[in-house]
Amino acid sequence: MKLSKRIESMQFSPIRKLAPFAAEARKNGKKVYGLNIGQPDIETPREFFEAINNFDEKVLAYAGSQGIDDLLQSFINYYKGWNINFEKDELMITYGGSEAIMFSLMAICDVGDEIIIPEPFYTNYNGFSQCAGVNVVSFTTKAEEGFHLPKKEEITSKITDKTRAILVSNPGNPTGVVYTEEEIRLLADISKEYNLYLIADEVYREFVYDNLKYTSALYMEDVQDRVILIDSISKRYSACGARIGLVASKNKVLIHQILKLCQSRLCVPTIEQIAAANLINTPESYFKEVKNEYDKRRNILFDGLMKIDGVVCKKPTGAFYVMAKLPIDNADDFAKWMLTDFSYDDKTVMVAPAEGFYGTKGAGKSEVRLSYCIKSDELEDAMKVLKYGLEEYKKIENSRCEAASCKCL
Amino acid sequence: MKLSKRIESMQFSPIRKLAPFAAEARKNGKKVYGLNIGQPDIETPREFFEAINNFDEKVLAYAGSQGIDDLLQSFINYYKGWNINFEKDELMITYGGSEAIMFSLMAICDVGDEIIIPEPFYTNYNGFSQCAGVNVVSFTTKAEEGFHLPKKEEITSKITDKTRAILVSNPGNPTGVVYTEEEIRLLADISKEYNLYLIADEVYREFVYDNLKYTSALYMEDVQDRVILIDSISKRYSACGARIGLVASKNKVLIHQILKLCQSRLCVPTIEQIAAANLINTPESYFKEVKNEYDKRRNILFDGLMKIDGVVCKKPTGAFYVMAKLPIDNADDFAKWMLTDFSYDDKTVMVAPAEGFYGTKGAGKSEVRLSYCIKSDELEDAMKVLKYGLEEYKKIENSRCEAASCKCL
Repeated sequence: MKLSKRIESMQFSPIRKLAPFAAEARKNGKKVYGLNIGQPDIETPREFFEAINNFDEKVLAYAGSQGIDDLLQSFINYYKGWNINFEKDELMITYGGSEAIMFSLMAICDVGDEIIIPEPFYTNYNGFSQCAGVNVVSFTTKAEEGFHLPKKEEITSKITDKTRAILVSNPGNPTGVVYTEEEIRLLADISKEYNLYLIADEVYREFVYDNLKYTSALYMEDVQDRVILIDSISKRYSACGARIGLVASKNKVLIHQILKLCQSRLCVPTIEQIAAANLINTPESYFKEVKNEYDKRRNILFDGLMKIDGVVCKKPTGAFYVMAKLPIDNADDFAKWMLTDFSYDDKTVMVAPAEGFYGTKGAGKSEVRLSYCIKSDELEDAMKVLKYGLEEYKKIENSRCEAASCKCL
Repeated sequence: MKLSKRIESMQFSPIRKLAPFAAEARKNGKKVYGLNIGQPDIETPREFFEAINNFDEKVLAYAGSQGIDDLLQSFINYYKGWNINFEKDELMITYGGSEAIMFSLMAICDVGDEIIIPEPFYTNYNGFSQCAGVNVVSFTTKAEEGFHLPKKEEITSKITDKTRAILVSNPGNPTGVVYTEEEIRLLADISKEYNLYLIADEVYREFVYDNLKYTSALYMEDVQDRVILIDSISKRYSACGARIGLVASKNKVLIHQILKLCQSRLCVPTIEQIAAANLINTPESYFKEVKNEYDKRRNILFDGLMKIDGVVCKKPTGAFYVMAKLPIDNADDFAKWMLTDFSYDDKTVMVAPAEGFYGTKGAGKSEVRLSYCIKSDELEDAMKVLKYGLEEYKKIENSRCEAASCKCL
């Protein structure tokens, strides 16, 4: 039976595709440090579970398609803390940030339209775009420059009459970059000059280190009708499994149209919404502790990387990821080898090969994304294991090259 | 700012669009009987809530993209009771039946492809198709014939080289029809003869009355690789707000490809999956009681309709809906009028105008869908109110026509 070209052209998640090898390694008694996925080990605030346990309706009914009032109101209150004022009809609750992106693309792009994304980018942006029949056009940001934006011309050279939006994640997944106010201003200017939407995926807003100032795309007041904000409780509250997200815009017409898409899938889970609404009561201390913890881990991860010969990477300032260029040719092979062939003291490390984060064919082949979502002492150990793994892998590669009198020598 | 043609061509839910008028009526003190929506008032099994309250993880983590093992296994066990044998790699857990349909369309159709659906059909089939860039081609089934399938030629005449699948809901939403074994055989034969998929939305499987035999599309063994089964716990367990569904097929290649789509949205809510898995422990008596209750209501609704002059409708044998042709020209106007202008004893009835359930332009204008998801005594009263409403509406219409010396007289 024939399948669609659409589905055949999609890729399996490069973050999740090594999972079977990790499972096999674990079965064989290896300890696998999972630095491949952004699944925090931080506790979800108890406010979430309290609300779940307090649910006492006898019938688990549909919620409204826009989302329940309490949750909408809790987002409104939350944004006030960031000096962003939203009204109820500027918000739609979605199945995580994922659906928020998908619905945004469907609402502003027709089949064959294009969006512009700085690469490396969150790999699922590709999946959403393919579902929506939208072509991703990427411009490159570099490890050497901490993945900051390139010059204006490099961005605008990618714009065609099919371009409908610029999509950025800030703080960046997978790069950990935090854009400066000037960079956000630049994106706003381009969106204005070329009549584009600016889709701002800001789900890591809380995770900005080194006392840097965070600039939301919504702070650019002259382009507020162009900004589509993507949000989620997944990372902020370590509640990835709740699948509660949000698409928001001061462009009320757009949001009202997105309601059609929301109605077509009826609603987001009722109980999860009620629980998410109660997260507004999470004490400030929670965020402080969590941020301190991630900051500590960031240092451990970065210091660990700097102890490995040939690694290229600037210290990231946001989210909980590092993109690092490793001194190898093929990170895909290396990542698999770490799971299938290597162990140190019965331990190994799982990383996410970065090729899938690039739009440009062949780019990122020697890069990996590492997340710091495991405890500090484990992370410290993981970085040692990674160092030993890399050293052994290079030895094997070199001896293979020598045996074959390979050109690369 | 420009929106996509895709979103502009979509419709707001015809089932939900009257909601603001109903809210206004309720605010003004009217009791509104909601026969417009398939939101059961039946209690969700306590097994669901027990599992939720037993959840004691500290971190609400992502689940796997396919779904959690316990839930997959519980679906496998459930199907055994229907003599359907599934293996784990033939199932994907989805956000309700909605996502199951959307993912099926994306996996088998490219933009511009067509699917064939008997009309009247579940209105969201349109929304999913538009999202996926797929054209819906409908063939008509009639109130006078209880919405059973027409002759083979009427169906096959709609098939072109763009057709990829036939999509049916059985038992039918909005029609309440239950297809005979011969009808399912016919659909299987057509799918074979024309090399099509057969998407079978069987979420109302439990609700078949009059001791009729239920025939799943999967019972047609010679087309098992063509059948894509859509399922959901929403109606079966009165758990609409859980948003747990399933796409299943003996075609393992197809299901494996759909995993790409599942990975792109990461996972379905973890806690809801755990709770849904425990529904397998719902006692048999629950289903018996629920079915008896719906059967009783079906009789009340149908008898009530038969007491109204000029109503055309055969007694439905499945699901919890009736499609009825009313003795009026425009059910849309009537439905709104019932909420804004009419009351009997401070009560009124909300119905779903059927035009949105048709693909053929102008069809179904005088039809409505009524659900029987409210208690028997209320339903009895609602049917009286509907009768009075229709009588008054016709009087007003007639006097308006007389005043205008309208042609229709």
